[in-house]
Amino acid sequence: MNSNEPTYVGVDIGGTKVAAGLVTPRGQILSKVRVPMASREGEAAGLQAVEKAIDAALDADPARKSSIAGIGIVSPGPVDPRRGIVVNPVNLPCWRNFPLVEEIKKSHGLPTVLDNDANAAALAEAIWGAGAGCESVFYVTIGTGIGTGLVLDGRIYHGRTGAAVEGGHVSIDYRGEQCGCGKRGCIEVLAAGPAVAKRARKRLEAVSKEGAKLRSLVGGNVASVTPEMVAQAWRDGDPLAAAILEETADLLAVWLGNMIDLLEPDVIVVGGGMSEVIFRWSARLLEQIPKWSVNSRCGEIPLVRAKYGEDSGIAGGAALCLTSPAS
Amino acid sequence: MNSNEPTYVGVDIGGTKVAAGLVTPRGQILSKVRVPMASREGEAAGLQAVEKAIDAALDADPARKSSIAGIGIVSPGPVDPRRGIVVNPVNLPCWRNFPLVEEIKKSHGLPTVLDNDANAAALAEAIWGAGAGCESVFYVTIGTGIGTGLVLDGRIYHGRTGAAVEGGHVSIDYRGEQCGCGKRGCIEVLAAGPAVAKRARKRLEAVSKEGAKLRSLVGGNVASVTPEMVAQAWRDGDPLAAAILEETADLLAVWLGNMIDLLEPDVIVVGGGMSEVIFRWSARLLEQIPKWSVNSRCGEIPLVRAKYGEDSGIAGGAALCLTSPAS
Repeated sequence: MNSNEPTYVGVDIGGTKVAAGLVTPRGQILSKVRVPMASREGEAAGLQAVEKAIDAALDADPARKSSIAGIGIVSPGPVDPRRGIVVNPVNLPCWRNFPLVEEIKKSHGLPTVLDNDANAAALAEAIWGAGAGCESVFYVTIGTGIGTGLVLDGRIYHGRTGAAVEGGHVSIDYRGEQCGCGKRGCIEVLAAGPAVAKRARKRLEAVSKEGAKLRSLVGGNVASVTPEMVAQAWRDGDPLAAAILEETADLLAVWLGNMIDLLEPDVIVVGGGMSEVIFRWSARLLEQIPKWSVNSRCGEIPLVRAKYGEDSGIAGGAALCLTSPAS
Repeated sequence: MNSNEPTYVGVDIGGTKVAAGLVTPRGQILSKVRVPMASREGEAAGLQAVEKAIDAALDADPARKSSIAGIGIVSPGPVDPRRGIVVNPVNLPCWRNFPLVEEIKKSHGLPTVLDNDANAAALAEAIWGAGAGCESVFYVTIGTGIGTGLVLDGRIYHGRTGAAVEGGHVSIDYRGEQCGCGKRGCIEVLAAGPAVAKRARKRLEAVSKEGAKLRSLVGGNVASVTPEMVAQAWRDGDPLAAAILEETADLLAVWLGNMIDLLEPDVIVVGGGMSEVIFRWSARLLEQIPKWSVNSRCGEIPLVRAKYGEDSGIAGGAALCLTSPAS
């Protein structure tokens, strides 16, 4: 340990847990803790859970306490990063326009910053991860939803109020299925984990012969099918699973073509719970994207897997400390 | 005239003409000339037309000749702004990977820069026009096609190779009509001038009672209907024309919702031949956009008409001189 080296606390708030960890200025995660999140018990209980996670992270390595240079908090959106306010995330009903940064600064006396999960993860990947060295990094996290972030010259692209780069809610099918957000045809409702499971459910219900391997994985209960089962069945050579994944990959290709035509990043970094599945489709994606982009050189843009997996929030929080004006 | 003030030559290359003008550092166009473009007669003839336009612009105001500080050239895309190369615009078959900047520097001995028409117009609006004073300006030009540009902190957002912000080819309907670019459902094929005319033609052919005012404007020849006729009929109270324009406005609202969810600009500036029509729909657009954006404050983003109309290329060229590293 370099005794002059600052250390950052990265805090990752979710609907059910708060994870926190100590991170070096080179993006190494030194330690991690996890406490339950009290997302439904009011403002104070939610705040206490976050404070508890921060304290546990600090207590995990007492020798570093004097070197802590800042706290970076990552929350589901929408948040107002400039004012340090958690606006109204669906999974955090405890807070509505809650001044989280002000509260944490009060309790811990350290520079504190806040951003949404996809933006922060994008920043960590751009600084320390799969996008390091690139001027422009487009980050996509695909799991139960689709989140995106854009980092230009080492800074998160925030837009007017910090609400920019909600790529998961870009519609590619305005007459299509309605998303939870109210819009129709958002890529999130068409291609995130629940969409893959729904597509599998429909196919299994509609046909009776195909998909033997997928069927044996779901064990008779079609409603219990998960994206992971579809991926597993595909690896086992199930043609129905392959068709489901190809259809999903093709929709992602339409959307990625749009993203490239608008943003033309130096690299596209993919994270989230479904990233393993996606990299199993990558040949299909790389084949389809040029059909959905007017950029004659779109094939030169690397599609790479995120460095930080489940630690993307902790790393992202720490990354915020490095680049945001500590407020 | 301030004798110390530099003057810029803005050059606007189109498929049939080259316009050029002298522009002050405050965006005032002092004089304009126009010569035919030889877009189909080979590299040298195309270059000569551009040189002739520049020379005519310089000759128009001999007293300024010593103050000329640069030449900014605007071409239909795709161009490579970093290398000063016209790549392969559909309307300029004379040039394929043509080093236009190098040639003009050779013939005129002045700092010379190049960008595509929408990017350059976006920059002129951001510096001197309807987006002046805003950090982020999203510019849309709607005419026979749809072009877009994004200016952040006074600089054009170029992306990896200068091919970013091709917003007209963002698809909102991947199963929809095929665009000239090969993709399906691009907003250009759904909502630019030809789409409005096509929609009008189909409606006029399908119904026989409605649209009396539009019918009288087209004078019996349904195939001759133009977007301007539709707008005129709408102003005259024709319900068929209103339905056509509303349908088009609703598609633009889907697309603008996507643009806001990704880019969240400070302002949206609309130019091009159809901008007058669009501002006649603006109430409809402003009503529809929030249905197609997850941004709870999207209604705060002003939708304003471009300052530079048909001079957007000349102004855009001059604007390039102000901000690009003269190469």
